[in-house]
Amino acid sequence: MGKDFPTREENYSQWYNDLVVKADLAENSAVRGCMVIKPYGYAIWEKMQAKLDKMFKDTGHSNAYFPLFIPKSFFTKEASHVEGFAKECAVVTHYRLKNAEDGSGIIVDPDAKLEEELIIRPTSETIIWNTYRGWIQSYRDLPILVNQWANVVRWEMRTRLFLRTAEFLWQEGHTAHATAEEAKEETLKMLDVYAEFAEETLAIPVVKGVKTANERFAGALDTYSIEAMMQDGKALQAGTSHFLGQNFAKAFDVKFTNKEGKQDFVWATSWGVSTRLMGALVMAHSDDEGLVLPPKLAPIQVVIVPIYKGDDQLNAINAVVHKIQSELQAKNISVKYDNRDTHKPGWKFAEYEFKGVPVRIAIGPRDLENGTVEVARRDTKEKSVMQITDLALKVEHLLEQIQSNLYNKALTFRETHTNKADSYDELKKLLDEGGFVMAHWDGTTETELKIKEETKATIRCIPMDSKAEEGKCVYSGKPSACRVIFARAY
Amino acid sequence: MGKDFPTREENYSQWYNDLVVKADLAENSAVRGCMVIKPYGYAIWEKMQAKLDKMFKDTGHSNAYFPLFIPKSFFTKEASHVEGFAKECAVVTHYRLKNAEDGSGIIVDPDAKLEEELIIRPTSETIIWNTYRGWIQSYRDLPILVNQWANVVRWEMRTRLFLRTAEFLWQEGHTAHATAEEAKEETLKMLDVYAEFAEETLAIPVVKGVKTANERFAGALDTYSIEAMMQDGKALQAGTSHFLGQNFAKAFDVKFTNKEGKQDFVWATSWGVSTRLMGALVMAHSDDEGLVLPPKLAPIQVVIVPIYKGDDQLNAINAVVHKIQSELQAKNISVKYDNRDTHKPGWKFAEYEFKGVPVRIAIGPRDLENGTVEVARRDTKEKSVMQITDLALKVEHLLEQIQSNLYNKALTFRETHTNKADSYDELKKLLDEGGFVMAHWDGTTETELKIKEETKATIRCIPMDSKAEEGKCVYSGKPSACRVIFARAY
Repeated sequence: MGKDFPTREENYSQWYNDLVVKADLAENSAVRGCMVIKPYGYAIWEKMQAKLDKMFKDTGHSNAYFPLFIPKSFFTKEASHVEGFAKECAVVTHYRLKNAEDGSGIIVDPDAKLEEELIIRPTSETIIWNTYRGWIQSYRDLPILVNQWANVVRWEMRTRLFLRTAEFLWQEGHTAHATAEEAKEETLKMLDVYAEFAEETLAIPVVKGVKTANERFAGALDTYSIEAMMQDGKALQAGTSHFLGQNFAKAFDVKFTNKEGKQDFVWATSWGVSTRLMGALVMAHSDDEGLVLPPKLAPIQVVIVPIYKGDDQLNAINAVVHKIQSELQAKNISVKYDNRDTHKPGWKFAEYEFKGVPVRIAIGPRDLENGTVEVARRDTKEKSVMQITDLALKVEHLLEQIQSNLYNKALTFRETHTNKADSYDELKKLLDEGGFVMAHWDGTTETELKIKEETKATIRCIPMDSKAEEGKCVYSGKPSACRVIFARAY
Repeated sequence: MGKDFPTREENYSQWYNDLVVKADLAENSAVRGCMVIKPYGYAIWEKMQAKLDKMFKDTGHSNAYFPLFIPKSFFTKEASHVEGFAKECAVVTHYRLKNAEDGSGIIVDPDAKLEEELIIRPTSETIIWNTYRGWIQSYRDLPILVNQWANVVRWEMRTRLFLRTAEFLWQEGHTAHATAEEAKEETLKMLDVYAEFAEETLAIPVVKGVKTANERFAGALDTYSIEAMMQDGKALQAGTSHFLGQNFAKAFDVKFTNKEGKQDFVWATSWGVSTRLMGALVMAHSDDEGLVLPPKLAPIQVVIVPIYKGDDQLNAINAVVHKIQSELQAKNISVKYDNRDTHKPGWKFAEYEFKGVPVRIAIGPRDLENGTVEVARRDTKEKSVMQITDLALKVEHLLEQIQSNLYNKALTFRETHTNKADSYDELKKLLDEGGFVMAHWDGTTETELKIKEETKATIRCIPMDSKAEEGKCVYSGKPSACRVIFARAY
């Protein structure tokens, strides 16, 4: 268990895929590009959902549910939106199967053709704004602060478990506002929620920034994102928040009467994160021995393994462990006691290490005599002997330490892999080494696309905390007012 | 608010639909047969989900996620399954749109036709059992106790909000076992979970029973259901649990090595409840003034309305209410204080009555002097004056009383609308009066279908607590060993 897959050094991509599959997070399904999220993986996703859902509700949002299907005509109402999504969508054309008349099997019934084709939602702006038209008459109906947890489909040609799948799970917030200022404020508020979630729960430092025009969401006036760095130095966009202006309100004729009694179009935002975060989680923290999970997301935070010979020893250990277990549970720590006699302690150690359980406690007969246990942490692999007295409190602190250690380690990694380039050669060299490269850019899509073509790197974002700094574009030599982040990305 | 819709007496069907829409639970969408679940309705569904999810986990189940799409060929592997679902499924045939060459707009790209069509899951037995084949080798891999929260699509021709929609939300449990006995035990265990949930959380009494062969799930050996009675006397199937035998294991070649070292096919169950429960909830308890929600599912359990003139009175009331509010919240009671000055108390009373808030507390200047509040319960519309001392405790008890009163009221209704028929004429007469009719049946599908054709009533189930009672079939006169439940149904 845990060793029959390459190291990160040997083959990062294969290491990732093997880890996801062998650690029981997810696997490919029989349907091209669609994955099965296995119970262990889903348990982590549920923890992400629970935390995010609470953060959304604490900021005034409610959940709702909109149809899976979008009429084709809705799609075409916002020009850049259809441009962005038409090439990769699943289309429902019929609503019935039947037995073939020649007895060859089940076929699609040609008589059951839909008058208008339905698109499986790749995102729900269109169907939601069509609905909001009925919900909004006056400023008193605003803001609408709604989120949806849903599955969406984008017919990607090249897929990878969690990172890019044809069907994925996500949440999509869709808010409606009376003024542009309020919508902009909401856009940034949710970006902050995502950044806080990434840093405090996923233990992944992120850069908040605004996307270039070329990288904007199809239909947005501004797209903001949080960008994370993986252990191979590549960037991963971990969440986006869009200021949609009045584009969708205009496309779906959603007007309201403002306080002055005048009609105006409604202002919109949308924002989302997806099961892609599962991929980010694995790629940011795990190592060559298996998963490393931040305690806040680990389905099992502490595993206890007894080391014994014979039933008498086991019974004595059981008694002590049950007490430890209930003390840990009283602190809301999820703990598993694995006293199965079908597997040896060494096998269990390897198994839970591989599955990323943050803390392992081992207890044997000598520990019983001394009133101690052996505590091993997954992140640093350090072991220490601890007195059982106050163990729950010590473990609670240890879990907090592991959470912050993972964050700090990832932050240090990002900082040591973020460099400045002042020439195009330097940019190319640094991109080949991996990591984020801060460089001047002239602000044109033309330059951006040429650099992308030549280096396979994209502008991840213009960081929000970017300092004004006069400079020259590394590619065109034209003037630039601040540095942007270039990186190869997932 | 709340009065511009028919009473139950006038038009039960319209009463239901108006209530669902006007109380902001759900509405029809632009997509035929698909609904939008609005925030207030979704908040109730979330409470149902949270409770059920806990019950599933407490009985050893984990959540996972399987693809939305099912290859057409999978569908055909279990003969009765495809027979049951082929007539009402959404079929994806293409994966791309494009601009029409004649400039007429966006069309489905004929070059992007799928080699094999994909069905939107109407239920997931096929894709899941195809996946389980890779998960199961030996008895040590069993049981698998997995549940999925998902959307499914059945292309129903006649739809009604919550009760029957093309897309709906549900959970589907899919378990795999080494023996028939274990699978049967699981089937009944989950039926019990559903019955307990219906009675204790929805406050709806249910009859547990087994379905006739004709009413079985497509692919099951036995289908069990819980059957509830609505206020118009019609039955509503509120949940089903299926013993699938080895049908799906055989269709997807899922074998395991048993303890004796021999190969055998795996035994299966599946079980589900859906957003249909939202319809049951409304139809079981609500009245001509609006929604009546059981406290365990009410998004707002207590609303507090101040009655005041001028800011001084309001400020004095606010201070007292904030204290009451935090005492209620300390007991995990969800409470809303509506001190908006844009609406009058009478409007608020009507609004919260219409929305089914179980307890309303009103507080005015005289109450302040007396240290009292006025407490009104939604179910009986009784009002009483209560001392503020210990108010939280009294409200907590009141909420429990309301919960059990709703259950008891529904139980009494069911009991008074359940009758025995000993002849076919009596059966028909009683069915016209509405309610459940207990009658003898000869056990044949032929008789069942004839009765259905002539009376529009179906056999809801053979109750599990049915007493052995020799009798004659009301239709054929042939011998029968026990009574079954006939009713018209949603």
